[in-house]
Amino acid sequence: MPHQSYLYREIHEQPVVLEKLLSGERKTIASLAAAIRQRDVQVVLIAARGTSDNAGRYANYLLGALNGLPVALATPSLYTIYNQTPRVRNALVIGISQSGKSPDIVSVLEDARKQGALTAAITNFPESDLGSAADHVIALHAGEERSIAATKTYTSELAAVALLAATLAEDDSRLEAIARIPDSVASALEIDARVAEIAPRYRYMRDCVVIGRGYNYATAFELALKMKELTYTIAEPYSSADFMHGPLALIEYGFPAIVIAPSGAMLPEMMTFIRLLREREAEAIVISDDGAALDLGRTRLPLPQGVPEWLSPLTAIVPGQLLALYLAHARDYDPDHPRGLRKVTETT
Amino acid sequence: MPHQSYLYREIHEQPVVLEKLLSGERKTIASLAAAIRQRDVQVVLIAARGTSDNAGRYANYLLGALNGLPVALATPSLYTIYNQTPRVRNALVIGISQSGKSPDIVSVLEDARKQGALTAAITNFPESDLGSAADHVIALHAGEERSIAATKTYTSELAAVALLAATLAEDDSRLEAIARIPDSVASALEIDARVAEIAPRYRYMRDCVVIGRGYNYATAFELALKMKELTYTIAEPYSSADFMHGPLALIEYGFPAIVIAPSGAMLPEMMTFIRLLREREAEAIVISDDGAALDLGRTRLPLPQGVPEWLSPLTAIVPGQLLALYLAHARDYDPDHPRGLRKVTETT
Repeated sequence: MPHQSYLYREIHEQPVVLEKLLSGERKTIASLAAAIRQRDVQVVLIAARGTSDNAGRYANYLLGALNGLPVALATPSLYTIYNQTPRVRNALVIGISQSGKSPDIVSVLEDARKQGALTAAITNFPESDLGSAADHVIALHAGEERSIAATKTYTSELAAVALLAATLAEDDSRLEAIARIPDSVASALEIDARVAEIAPRYRYMRDCVVIGRGYNYATAFELALKMKELTYTIAEPYSSADFMHGPLALIEYGFPAIVIAPSGAMLPEMMTFIRLLREREAEAIVISDDGAALDLGRTRLPLPQGVPEWLSPLTAIVPGQLLALYLAHARDYDPDHPRGLRKVTETT
Repeated sequence: MPHQSYLYREIHEQPVVLEKLLSGERKTIASLAAAIRQRDVQVVLIAARGTSDNAGRYANYLLGALNGLPVALATPSLYTIYNQTPRVRNALVIGISQSGKSPDIVSVLEDARKQGALTAAITNFPESDLGSAADHVIALHAGEERSIAATKTYTSELAAVALLAATLAEDDSRLEAIARIPDSVASALEIDARVAEIAPRYRYMRDCVVIGRGYNYATAFELALKMKELTYTIAEPYSSADFMHGPLALIEYGFPAIVIAPSGAMLPEMMTFIRLLREREAEAIVISDDGAALDLGRTRLPLPQGVPEWLSPLTAIVPGQLLALYLAHARDYDPDHPRGLRKVTETT
């Protein structure tokens, strides 16, 4: 059954899509990077919603860390409802949207162009309204995404962001690391059968929190979104630091907490956090390539070795996509047609 | 019982605290506004966590709408974990923290000052590390906040942001509107007994969503945070637009959705959203000053008339603070000592 869903196939298509993006968009991205340098861009504004907004969260950290650029996530309602738009003439304004159709995201790009800002679109449909509104258009090369829940377009968006950051930084070793990502995502997918086996344990889970920080703050949001869309679990994403400022009160015996903890600079913080969860008798579900971190989990979802932390969001989301898929099956939900959702959501 | 809690008293102290802030900080804020003009600031970076981060969300919209400034919410882990900080020399960097003690927030300000950026702190403790790290220090005048859940410092932070935005815009009619806010918050508090009566209906509510957009996106986050801290309800905040991109799948018969819908440019969108909730048989809890919007709610929490939309977050949070207080009592929880939380959270 799972193998017949579009969702299953699209999750497993990710390595191929990533290959296509990386080979197909190098030139476009190099030309965008050149324009950013020429214009002496000081700030980046990103407009996106849903899954694409989570790719924006990754850009928030990556463009800050690799390129020293502060990133603002746009407030589309200032454009579409209040008609009071910020000055962005000296900014790079990026719209991210699978369909390229969401009117509020298109509005942000159109206004930016009118103001004379440098604009870019990241979309699966370069001919869309969003693509037409942008100076530079990065295509996702994902092919048609038929499942309503986005998976292959998400990792393709992440790869586009990573390629832009590394190209702008003129960092060859990082560019080489990106080239290895399709293989790493293929390795991450080998966990498929294990996730299928584990998923029924969470059949009656009504709610959970998903914790990630830094580069994987995006992963926490995206994993939570898949759980909501596909399994109707009330899944709330948090940075471990924000979680300490209030929501920690939620934790009680057995409360499920999915923790994204790949190796790197953030790992010690995440391990401290998992230990705190254990003290409070939460159920920790750990996604990591680190043996010690995995050992702290009640459920352990291993990631492939050798992926640098700044690229780990590309592999770390994979167990979450699979968990959402198999939990949907455990609950007899149709993963391709979540209740109440349509593929293109035209919010204003 | 409720009347003996610090939380009850601090909620009801809000009009007095707002008076003190508005009379005490005009000069400091005028001097910050002058510095922003002189430096030709192009972007604002805000560092904050928890409740203060929600005041930052308000600033995100207000400084954009009134002052044309794009606002980025800081990524403290780039400072404390990754040591790769964005360039902010041409930015205004604002730290918001009740205690002024959170090391990660202080780090952002210290780095900004080193880079030569204009810095400001909004804090209840001007002598704190955060206050010492900033060029301009805005005091909250809230007195000691003894309840762990922040209430009076939140509305004081909102008022500081509103005063800054209106002063910077040199808009006298907006400054007059701010002067009326303490009275409006006092009127909003008259709903106290009604909320006490309604709260037991939600005694066994395990989870809910809280919906707000635009200026009241902040209100949705802050109301959800109070529900989590004080009542251990899994309360997830959303913009109505983001909710359509996936989480809508969660809605089923009786699912509780608290909707912040004060009158203004956003009201038609919120009313459309409440009607959609009703079609899907959700339980809508409506916070509004508009009769037609309230009529759509299963539970109706009226706001005082005459508050302009851009200031409505100051009154719209009040029914939420009271709902969290009385729901804590309905569940026999101690509102002053939520489990597992401390007043000062020193995240790095």
